[in-house]
Amino acid sequence: MAIALAIKEALASSSMIRKMFEEGNELKKQYGADKVFDFSLGNPDLEPPDAFKDVFLRMAEDDVSGKTKGKHGYMPNAGYPEVRESLSKKASSDHQCIVPPANITMTAGAAGGLNVVFKSILNPGDEVIVPKPYFVEYRNYIKNHGGTLTEAATTPDFSLDINEIEKALSNKTAAVLINSPNNPTGKVYTGQDITALAALLRIHGTKTGRFPYLVADEPYREIVYNGITVPPVLSAYKESIVVTSYSKSLSLPGERIGYIAAGPQLSEKEDLLNALIYANRVLGFVNAPALMQRIVAELQDQKADVTIYDRRRSAFKEVLDNAGLRYAQPEGAFYFFVKVPERKSNGRSITDDVSFSECLKKHLILGVPGSGFAGPGWIRFAYCVDEKIIRASSAAFKEAVREWNGLIV
Amino acid sequence: MAIALAIKEALASSSMIRKMFEEGNELKKQYGADKVFDFSLGNPDLEPPDAFKDVFLRMAEDDVSGKTKGKHGYMPNAGYPEVRESLSKKASSDHQCIVPPANITMTAGAAGGLNVVFKSILNPGDEVIVPKPYFVEYRNYIKNHGGTLTEAATTPDFSLDINEIEKALSNKTAAVLINSPNNPTGKVYTGQDITALAALLRIHGTKTGRFPYLVADEPYREIVYNGITVPPVLSAYKESIVVTSYSKSLSLPGERIGYIAAGPQLSEKEDLLNALIYANRVLGFVNAPALMQRIVAELQDQKADVTIYDRRRSAFKEVLDNAGLRYAQPEGAFYFFVKVPERKSNGRSITDDVSFSECLKKHLILGVPGSGFAGPGWIRFAYCVDEKIIRASSAAFKEAVREWNGLIV
Repeated sequence: MAIALAIKEALASSSMIRKMFEEGNELKKQYGADKVFDFSLGNPDLEPPDAFKDVFLRMAEDDVSGKTKGKHGYMPNAGYPEVRESLSKKASSDHQCIVPPANITMTAGAAGGLNVVFKSILNPGDEVIVPKPYFVEYRNYIKNHGGTLTEAATTPDFSLDINEIEKALSNKTAAVLINSPNNPTGKVYTGQDITALAALLRIHGTKTGRFPYLVADEPYREIVYNGITVPPVLSAYKESIVVTSYSKSLSLPGERIGYIAAGPQLSEKEDLLNALIYANRVLGFVNAPALMQRIVAELQDQKADVTIYDRRRSAFKEVLDNAGLRYAQPEGAFYFFVKVPERKSNGRSITDDVSFSECLKKHLILGVPGSGFAGPGWIRFAYCVDEKIIRASSAAFKEAVREWNGLIV
Repeated sequence: MAIALAIKEALASSSMIRKMFEEGNELKKQYGADKVFDFSLGNPDLEPPDAFKDVFLRMAEDDVSGKTKGKHGYMPNAGYPEVRESLSKKASSDHQCIVPPANITMTAGAAGGLNVVFKSILNPGDEVIVPKPYFVEYRNYIKNHGGTLTEAATTPDFSLDINEIEKALSNKTAAVLINSPNNPTGKVYTGQDITALAALLRIHGTKTGRFPYLVADEPYREIVYNGITVPPVLSAYKESIVVTSYSKSLSLPGERIGYIAAGPQLSEKEDLLNALIYANRVLGFVNAPALMQRIVAELQDQKADVTIYDRRRSAFKEVLDNAGLRYAQPEGAFYFFVKVPERKSNGRSITDDVSFSECLKKHLILGVPGSGFAGPGWIRFAYCVDEKIIRASSAAFKEAVREWNGLIV
């Protein structure tokens, strides 16, 4: 009883993604880093844009010269007023409505932001509906604050299935959590899908008296391909809350900087804004890291070079095609969600993603089994790695698939 | 029901410290910043040491020149190995025992660290004993993770009262949480007190089979006066965990950087270390901010200029003496905990700290009522403000006390 029982249980079945990360490090030690095709972790390898470095340097110089003072101290728990002002413009433009600075809460990345949101809105026993597959940590973020995650199936191409969400709705539904562009599928929900979801939630709210929040986790909003855009959420549904970060768009995942943008028309806006600030404080975040707040406020028109990710996407597509693998078409983010090839064993169909990932690992290819995302039968590959590694993995992929198909269980 | 009920209740009685902070800002707008004697918030006004700025600048330059790469990306959730290595030396020296790097978890300040600890160790209904008065947020940090705070009285000079802690112990006691140097009293617990507490916990553990953790919150360890030192904790009791930050010692409270040092002899060490890393991840901290990790690793021999705080302490002492106020002798941190002067009203003794703080506010003096720290009848003044402001407050203090004593309720 020296540690919490819930944690003891959780540790026993801990995140597959991190497990792969650590196994990958072991394999790299053994075979050399350039010999392992590590597609396990969504850790952008691109450097932050030059504009980031320029602002970073200027702030360090101003610190040394004494031009700025007190800039590493406390500020209001929601963040610097001028930073919130800057980001309110970005949120207004992304969501096609006026988001006032008061609606912005600076957070320690999107992971911090989601915990702040769930702490603010969940009563014990409340449910949060999440279309699957989904980022595995969502379950923990919801559970941390007394809620439970209710899964909703998606369509075969991983679009929102409004009927499935409707079936999952109940009096206990506090929120629907969506993630678009999606990790792990790369799907971007269309404007029509968002509109249909908003209509469903309005009908449910009118009927039951409880309007579920629509929580949109959007760290990949800037990373989209083929001219696709991510539709606005805050203007589509009154009771919506957007959580985002600069981890992917500016390649700053280690710095833990992001924000919550609360809908301008929220029916209990004052209460919710106060709750977010309170939750940010008492969960021990206190405030988002000061320096990074000041830096990102100046970088609203900057993002990682998406053309690089796009080239990698094409390269990876070739690799998968050559190996005869099927996959969801990624419209955003930097993941391929790949179907485990069906093989027959004694007349039974085997599409076990954990076994397939073990088979890939023998060929030094690391991906995360879809079971880790409530998407069994699939496997996720992150292509935020060098194009050369992607191309070099082609032979290994082909061999692994050959071995998989020929294997006898 | 749009926000969580627990939060709704909490907001209604939210932190007095932050309330004062905001009222102070209002008064400053009204009367001018130099006219308000704001001793409400423990926000160090000293700049970080020059060595901090030098390292900060060098890291920005290395980023721009491309000398370092990937330094804003993810690292293991516990922090960079080389940072943990550096801090393990500091923890070993502070606590007079060998603390291996594996026992260090980098956190978003001490507030983040305490949440990580309580998430890791608390089962529903568990109790954490805290000597009073105490930093008001402790109650929230414990409650976040299903525990309850059990108060233990201290001696008249705010030393640990081992008998009171003994009375508070039960089968449900998961931990005793101490804070030394103490906020709000400035008390530094002696080595004998720590030894006696350790002995008590060992006896209790042997008797009940459950050894409570000793959790030491030590952000003020470096800020001590008159040659006083803070005794080691990790070497005094096997089941101990130290949480600390650079908020006070390097004046970096806005940057959210600190660490947890777990005792080298913990009986379930592996489990606890894994739990801390897991909790850091799932609570949404993910990892402590990357840049600040790298900076503090190089600054183990650096701290704020304590002689400045010491001069302010002397100045404040004079001010309080001149006003005829009584107070606890601060041995560390940067707070005076001042007794509300007793006044008689219809034969009744009035020592109400909220009324006294209202009276002080009329004279533009801001302090936090002791009720906010479970220490009614007292008031806390933070002296991490310019010495000129402290000295200039003397007349106002005298007038406020005169008014207080003459008032008829």
